[in-house]
Amino acid sequence: MRVVSLANLVLLSVTICCSLTETLSNGSSPNIIIMLMDDMGWGDLGVLGQPSKETPNLDAMAAQGMLLTNFYTANPLCSPSRAALLTGRLPVRNGFYTTNAHARNAYTPQEIVGGISKDEILLPEMLKKKGYVSKIVGKWHLGHRPQYLPLEHGFDEWFGSPNCHFGPYNGSVRPNIPVYNNSEMIGRYFEDFKIDLRTGESNLTQMYLMEGIDFIRRQSDAKQPFFLYWAADATHAPVYASKSFLGKSQRGRYGDAVMELDYSVGQILSLLQGLGIEKNTFVFFTSDNGAALISTPHEGGSNGPFLCGKQTTFEGGMREPAIAWWPGHIKDGTVSLQPANVMDLFTTSLVLAGISPPDDRTLDGIDLTAVLLNGSHKLHNSRPIFFYRGNEMMAVRLGQYKAHYWTWSNSWEEFQHGVNFCPGQEVPGVTTHDQKEHTLQPLIFHLGQDPGEKYPLSVLTKEYQEVLRNISAVVQQHQKTLVPGMPQLNMCDLAVMNWAPPGCEKLGKCLKPPKSAPWKCLWPH
Amino acid sequence: MRVVSLANLVLLSVTICCSLTETLSNGSSPNIIIMLMDDMGWGDLGVLGQPSKETPNLDAMAAQGMLLTNFYTANPLCSPSRAALLTGRLPVRNGFYTTNAHARNAYTPQEIVGGISKDEILLPEMLKKKGYVSKIVGKWHLGHRPQYLPLEHGFDEWFGSPNCHFGPYNGSVRPNIPVYNNSEMIGRYFEDFKIDLRTGESNLTQMYLMEGIDFIRRQSDAKQPFFLYWAADATHAPVYASKSFLGKSQRGRYGDAVMELDYSVGQILSLLQGLGIEKNTFVFFTSDNGAALISTPHEGGSNGPFLCGKQTTFEGGMREPAIAWWPGHIKDGTVSLQPANVMDLFTTSLVLAGISPPDDRTLDGIDLTAVLLNGSHKLHNSRPIFFYRGNEMMAVRLGQYKAHYWTWSNSWEEFQHGVNFCPGQEVPGVTTHDQKEHTLQPLIFHLGQDPGEKYPLSVLTKEYQEVLRNISAVVQQHQKTLVPGMPQLNMCDLAVMNWAPPGCEKLGKCLKPPKSAPWKCLWPH
Repeated sequence: MRVVSLANLVLLSVTICCSLTETLSNGSSPNIIIMLMDDMGWGDLGVLGQPSKETPNLDAMAAQGMLLTNFYTANPLCSPSRAALLTGRLPVRNGFYTTNAHARNAYTPQEIVGGISKDEILLPEMLKKKGYVSKIVGKWHLGHRPQYLPLEHGFDEWFGSPNCHFGPYNGSVRPNIPVYNNSEMIGRYFEDFKIDLRTGESNLTQMYLMEGIDFIRRQSDAKQPFFLYWAADATHAPVYASKSFLGKSQRGRYGDAVMELDYSVGQILSLLQGLGIEKNTFVFFTSDNGAALISTPHEGGSNGPFLCGKQTTFEGGMREPAIAWWPGHIKDGTVSLQPANVMDLFTTSLVLAGISPPDDRTLDGIDLTAVLLNGSHKLHNSRPIFFYRGNEMMAVRLGQYKAHYWTWSNSWEEFQHGVNFCPGQEVPGVTTHDQKEHTLQPLIFHLGQDPGEKYPLSVLTKEYQEVLRNISAVVQQHQKTLVPGMPQLNMCDLAVMNWAPPGCEKLGKCLKPPKSAPWKCLWPH
Repeated sequence: MRVVSLANLVLLSVTICCSLTETLSNGSSPNIIIMLMDDMGWGDLGVLGQPSKETPNLDAMAAQGMLLTNFYTANPLCSPSRAALLTGRLPVRNGFYTTNAHARNAYTPQEIVGGISKDEILLPEMLKKKGYVSKIVGKWHLGHRPQYLPLEHGFDEWFGSPNCHFGPYNGSVRPNIPVYNNSEMIGRYFEDFKIDLRTGESNLTQMYLMEGIDFIRRQSDAKQPFFLYWAADATHAPVYASKSFLGKSQRGRYGDAVMELDYSVGQILSLLQGLGIEKNTFVFFTSDNGAALISTPHEGGSNGPFLCGKQTTFEGGMREPAIAWWPGHIKDGTVSLQPANVMDLFTTSLVLAGISPPDDRTLDGIDLTAVLLNGSHKLHNSRPIFFYRGNEMMAVRLGQYKAHYWTWSNSWEEFQHGVNFCPGQEVPGVTTHDQKEHTLQPLIFHLGQDPGEKYPLSVLTKEYQEVLRNISAVVQQHQKTLVPGMPQLNMCDLAVMNWAPPGCEKLGKCLKPPKSAPWKCLWPH
């Protein structure tokens, strides 16, 4: 009995059935579906430890595909994270950041002037080269002024809205957020697309599901490769679910929303199987940032064992649930520990489609096909993950180690007014309320042994010195060659809000904007 | 699309293939295996969200059986929890508590005078009525003086030790802990059974596995029903693993130990299948208390999203991983949200064996067969879970609600000296360092919405008032009828340590005890 077979130790099964070359050599570019959730946390999936196990479809998706437990977003906030996914580039490169103050999160509220630059190349633009038809369903969040909208940046179809579903507004000081069908608005939230803030009832997820299903059916019938970017937002406060799901979960409205999204994922995967196109469709499920703990317990999710949440560069702010599904290509029931990033979906999708990624710019996303299709681990220790807040690199992960160069949860002032991104969590010297600089001596954590970032390595150890040497080299290289993009999230103006979106005339829903009076947006955290 | 099929919502599949009556009417009493881990936390299993997913065998066990996500131990410490499992009674009834100070955890170190009373009836004693042969492999922890040992309390065989594997001791002030084979010691830890504290290497889990396998084989050959209580302790500090497993996990020695235990579970289940007795063997996997966060990050585990750990009556101290496995009887891939308890294993095992539970005493364990075999939920909201520390009822769970009547993590004095049972966690007014009484107005949490116990319900709400009314009735009934047992964990004496255990003469390993000088044991937390 002393000689133990190691066969059972192999956590990550390696499939040899289908090399990338084989996959690509059959000539057909697979359909691509990216399902991006809004503020859903790592710990919200049953398969990742949510105690009441309310995601049977996602758990089954993981059992039929690959679960990536070290998968990250590119920013702890929605807009920059989404811009990174679609460009394959860090927000500091693609312009989705602010320089108004040091290390501030920024996004695209209605008053934002900027948006995604025409100089950026988005995934659907690239996919056109192989004849892909692309649709975004749900939240766009890369700018709401006409030049920034999805159909101006490679998408062929859109059903959804440019901003968060905040409201209702009375239309005098602030307009309600429009809902678009392709390039024209078809109504506004709260007016034409109901969200009942009292009960949490809304049929939006059902509409998004229907739109996704309709698109898949049409493209399948037309035998044309497609890219569906399914960006539902029911788990972003104000959280909503349709009547059939309200009250169904053990954890209130938030869990109900998760159950409806889980149901929708199940419906989409079933449809692919029903249409017989599942072996030709690569599906990836993830979220845009960590759960918004500030909205817990009623409208926020769970980051499992990780520290803090949305808005922070701790693991809870940026480690995401991630499942890759592609029957016949990705081996079922596999787990990958590969540190990976939402930006990798850009590069990986292009490689799967047989398209060379752009070579005229720096890409931060890497090709994950070796990991997904062959279970390769060769990238495991060499690939850094960067954690930015605004234009400041707060932290970097290399292999199992994460080094914090700056720590900040939020300001004392905000904190004392009840704004808490780390409720019930406090790690002295780590969850700081001053912007604390550690650039000369970063706080380093071993995320395998300490996923909750509670025990910095002692700087006196050989381990610390060795890790710091390796990480410093990577950071120096990164910073030396970094060319920041033009910041898009600096200026605000009430005149640019959704007063009169394209199509408003037909609906009689145009509102009169105030006079332009731009100011430098205030980003408090 | 508005009409959503609810079929996908059914998280808990209900099996109708085999009612309890059918199961029992075939006449054969199933074998029973209870695998009890030591200090393993809820969040240590892949299926419960451990990020590096190092338990493929346990995850498969859950996929083939039922995962119980609301399963509790009876005490946040090892000895009382184990006494409760084997008697089906709360420690305050079976004597495994102290009255030396208010609300103190107590256990069975070497100097403890007491142990399991002869008035208690243990599970193996009951199982004898149907001809079961019982073996304990691993840690006993119900007292080490001769009258308290396993073979005096119904077990037919034992391989393991009476206390924790602390040491090494030099034998003058304190003897090393003995390892027993049945009723005689066969050596001592560190002397004859090596644990290398520097490297963490020890072959003990392999020995425990071999002992379990050998017993199962023998009983299977003899066609005699058996009860195997497999109580491995590799995840209790000092944590250990054998050479083949050291360095294999992402989280150091603790993860290595988990991987070896997971491997062992896999071997045992495979053996049952290989022998063709899996359909006649009920297997249950759980742990004795929450992960010991005081031993993190190197020698402690994870309680996932729950608050604090071992020693506390927060969820992290007492919610346990739990998997029931019985092919052909328990439907595969099911999840039960039924609040259940380690004491239920006593009652449930007896019912499965076709034996009436003792009717001359109060039992706290209930019969879970309806939940396990039929997926019944009827108990869901009526069954309380009590959280004791010593003889104080600190908290009670009823349905989704948990009411704290007392809160205490540990004393300020200990805390200021670095003893921290809630590292990185601090919930003001909840993780208190004074023993804080809330008996007139308990802190109430909704564990579905707030599993981390961070947001007490407002006492002004109707919800609070209603819940309090229900819980108060249950608490009053409980306290009115409670007859505490004689406390066994009050007195200590250096003379009772393992100086000269039975069998020491043959080995030349008897040591001379000092003169008896009993004192009231000091239980600091």
